[in-house]
Amino acid sequence: MAVYTEVSDDDLIDFIAQYDIGEVISCKGIAEGVENSNYLLHTDKDAFILTLYEKRVSPEDLPFFLGLMEHLAKKGILCPLPIAARDGEALRTLCNRPAALTSFLEGMWPRKIKPFHCSELGAALARFHLAGQDYATTRANSLSLSSWRPLFELCRARCAEVRANLGPLVAAELDFLEANWPTDLPSGVCHADLFPDNVFFIGEKLSGFIDFYFACNDALVYDLAVCMNAWCFERDRSFNVTKARLLLSAYSKVRPLSQAELDALPVLARGSAVRFLLTRLFDWLNHPEGALVKPKDPLEYAAILGFHQSVRDVTAYGLDRGTMHA
Amino acid sequence: MAVYTEVSDDDLIDFIAQYDIGEVISCKGIAEGVENSNYLLHTDKDAFILTLYEKRVSPEDLPFFLGLMEHLAKKGILCPLPIAARDGEALRTLCNRPAALTSFLEGMWPRKIKPFHCSELGAALARFHLAGQDYATTRANSLSLSSWRPLFELCRARCAEVRANLGPLVAAELDFLEANWPTDLPSGVCHADLFPDNVFFIGEKLSGFIDFYFACNDALVYDLAVCMNAWCFERDRSFNVTKARLLLSAYSKVRPLSQAELDALPVLARGSAVRFLLTRLFDWLNHPEGALVKPKDPLEYAAILGFHQSVRDVTAYGLDRGTMHA
Repeated sequence: MAVYTEVSDDDLIDFIAQYDIGEVISCKGIAEGVENSNYLLHTDKDAFILTLYEKRVSPEDLPFFLGLMEHLAKKGILCPLPIAARDGEALRTLCNRPAALTSFLEGMWPRKIKPFHCSELGAALARFHLAGQDYATTRANSLSLSSWRPLFELCRARCAEVRANLGPLVAAELDFLEANWPTDLPSGVCHADLFPDNVFFIGEKLSGFIDFYFACNDALVYDLAVCMNAWCFERDRSFNVTKARLLLSAYSKVRPLSQAELDALPVLARGSAVRFLLTRLFDWLNHPEGALVKPKDPLEYAAILGFHQSVRDVTAYGLDRGTMHA
Repeated sequence: MAVYTEVSDDDLIDFIAQYDIGEVISCKGIAEGVENSNYLLHTDKDAFILTLYEKRVSPEDLPFFLGLMEHLAKKGILCPLPIAARDGEALRTLCNRPAALTSFLEGMWPRKIKPFHCSELGAALARFHLAGQDYATTRANSLSLSSWRPLFELCRARCAEVRANLGPLVAAELDFLEANWPTDLPSGVCHADLFPDNVFFIGEKLSGFIDFYFACNDALVYDLAVCMNAWCFERDRSFNVTKARLLLSAYSKVRPLSQAELDALPVLARGSAVRFLLTRLFDWLNHPEGALVKPKDPLEYAAILGFHQSVRDVTAYGLDRGTMHA
């Protein structure tokens, strides 16, 4: 649930007058994305999404995100395309915030994940990774290994408010991850936040990705670990190995995984679990009373972490060791 | 800001399969209306609004509201048209709630009211009143005079939390209104909630009314009083007599006002101020901690009431006494 900034009709009309997209005929604040204000705009020519970037997005990162979407769209990856105004610039200002207009991506995000969603996702993620290989700009992953301990320190004293043993559990896991985090894996542009609400489908076909505002350069297989955690656990927190196998095998058909990547997957899955556990924990402990956005449960990711801690190798994800790699 | 009920993609697809409106290609919860859950739906044929009626709307009133919109749309009044499913029924069930699909009405509601908005509104309101004259179904105004004292009694003990003298002020006003409320005025279907967010414009032209869920039978000029209060006061609570004159004169060009209606306008304006003062007061005192919807300020309507208490006749609204009526 979003829409933080209310845009007046006068401001909107002045803003849209900078583009060649026709006349505005409606503009509705939409309950999508929790970081920014999003509007669905109809002009007499087409539908668009207008995004106002709120304080969680660093303005200096916006050229990376918008440039990436443009790069991907040109390569045929289904995603919103930033629309340039008449002066050639897509990144503008509205209501004292950075703002951009993108094409409207059709489709709906799946509320209940079925196996076919996971195979569609795997193939699309691999195509996305390949398309990103020659994107020249880079952005470090600001939510990777080195950020987790400082984030944990901000929460540590209050971990027990969430669950008695949570602090010691995370502390031990950080020790493990710092000692075992893989390097030298194939890297490139990752979406890094491909939860179901960022992946649209029309019927059984994936229609595109949205919300590139965590995109960064990192190990490509880390992105797959994020997806596995976000798509392959059921609501009762059980792991659905069929979904994982479909996700990973569909991915590897498009971009084969090396043995090093397969071997790294369990530890990356643990790291991805810690990343979302910690950001959720921070939000849980720090959300203002009566905030619009209900914080997500950090313990969901403690359960996911627990599963991966018990994993020895990728056979636990439904793969035969040695059959998947390039 | 709304969207209370999340509709899953599966439920939505099953629901839309009951209609002949094409395939769903997107569905976004929109931040519009505070009483119901609203979605903007795109199919491969057109755009629609899907509304799930939440607990503030009585299900038994829905046939009146939907029938009214259908009646008005057939008479050329610009408003959303309820869409019947293949079985001929527009009122259905989704996620255990009454639900209906309507056509998508283009336009934007004005955030800053200019004089032209008021003349457009006046003329459209009069056309709406004329078109409603032969709508056969009726619904009493459940928020008229007889409901105000019981509503006040629910708030009375806590009025001072809002302003020290608010309780005595409302009590005295209710005495006045009960003694002076006009009867025998021309009556018919009123919208009864025509605030700016329920009136859409494209450029300087009114494109339609939405949100008929307070519509009822009452004195037609009461609807005009509601509009005058909602459109003709500035943010600093001053009364803009130019806007009022435009509203009333544009109305009376389409549906001339009788002398009795003109004479009744000041007391109806006081009544309308009390109606919104009391519902806002009730919501203010009873909204749950951390609710999604920020309650509106009841004191805005105390100021509006104060203005009308000082009014002797319609000359205060920019009209010459005797020149406006039929």
